[in-house]
Amino acid sequence: MKVTVVKNVLDANDRIAAENRELFDRHKIYVINLMSSPGAGKTSLVERTIGALRDKYRIAVIEGDIQDTYDADRIAKLDIPVVQINTGGGCHIDGNMIREALPAFDLSKIDFLIVENVGNLVCPAEFKIGENIKIMLLSTPEGADKPSKYPLMFQESSALLINKIDLMPYVDFDLEKAKRDSLALHKDLKIFEVSCKTAAGRDEWIAWLTQRIDAFKK
Amino acid sequence: MKVTVVKNVLDANDRIAAENRELFDRHKIYVINLMSSPGAGKTSLVERTIGALRDKYRIAVIEGDIQDTYDADRIAKLDIPVVQINTGGGCHIDGNMIREALPAFDLSKIDFLIVENVGNLVCPAEFKIGENIKIMLLSTPEGADKPSKYPLMFQESSALLINKIDLMPYVDFDLEKAKRDSLALHKDLKIFEVSCKTAAGRDEWIAWLTQRIDAFKK
Repeated sequence: MKVTVVKNVLDANDRIAAENRELFDRHKIYVINLMSSPGAGKTSLVERTIGALRDKYRIAVIEGDIQDTYDADRIAKLDIPVVQINTGGGCHIDGNMIREALPAFDLSKIDFLIVENVGNLVCPAEFKIGENIKIMLLSTPEGADKPSKYPLMFQESSALLINKIDLMPYVDFDLEKAKRDSLALHKDLKIFEVSCKTAAGRDEWIAWLTQRIDAFKK
Repeated sequence: MKVTVVKNVLDANDRIAAENRELFDRHKIYVINLMSSPGAGKTSLVERTIGALRDKYRIAVIEGDIQDTYDADRIAKLDIPVVQINTGGGCHIDGNMIREALPAFDLSKIDFLIVENVGNLVCPAEFKIGENIKIMLLSTPEGADKPSKYPLMFQESSALLINKIDLMPYVDFDLEKAKRDSLALHKDLKIFEVSCKTAAGRDEWIAWLTQRIDAFKK
């Protein structure tokens, strides 16, 4: 009997992610894959984004967490369709987890799907899920050394939201260095300075995102 | 030809970690494995701990990062032996990486080895490296939902340092919930409230750590 060796688990994942993408294209669903360290403000950004765009698009959310439904409960309160993926120890969402989650939605009634990945600045960046774009957050208390220490996520993301900008007076965060080092890794990275607490920078982020979604749906 | 299947990569790691542990025991080296999210303050804690204990113990440090020597450079400035492990994309330190790093040290001249893991609240908790104890940090800007969302690290650690306690007035951090949920996961977890910026809580942490090291070396 021939033993088949899967040389690279990422190849298998890429294939499933491409199938997800085909399904999303068929239904004209724009998908973002939202990534960051734990506690950088992903769920708060999802809440803000839903608030700004729910009258314009039919939005759905997939929440990825190791366990618990803490984040999904926050989204469900907004009366938005949401599925919680519990990875059971896994440190990222992969294409297959998204595939398993999709039957819970009526895809014909979604324009815009937000996937909030597990809080982790490393592994989520390695796994495609069928998204249109990856978006990442970096929060000011984490420090400006993160681009040079965790380069892949900065390279893979289309936009970087520097969050908790309201905490700048209380933390040692070199904003210019963070932006400079991020752009050195990825010259086309779009950078926003935001606070999900005060809503600073929200309009620029929403305008950029809307333009992307509209261009896709046209 | 017989095909050998490694059923569980963690089994192989446990074996190497046990060999590291034997080596540390032979040289009476107390080892802590320091873990947290990116930017929670691990390197600052290492600096503070070195400052408090360098006259009492001969200290060495292993820094784990995906790339770069940013943290190791900070430690080297203190004139402390330090080795940088670059994981090259890997999201945690494992037993073999530690084994490979050890020849760079003169083990007969070390009492206390601090290993700073890659910033990641998930995977580092799964891999033993030959440490005496695991120590974790949680910083207040990350939020009090972290124990319920990332339980393994709280279960595996002997002590939890809640860091950036100086930022409490500016962030929504429910300290009592964080402590309660951490203890629900691990009833013997020792919890310290600290600020590596202001040195708050340092004396309690150092006293506890010193007691552990002295008991081991006796």
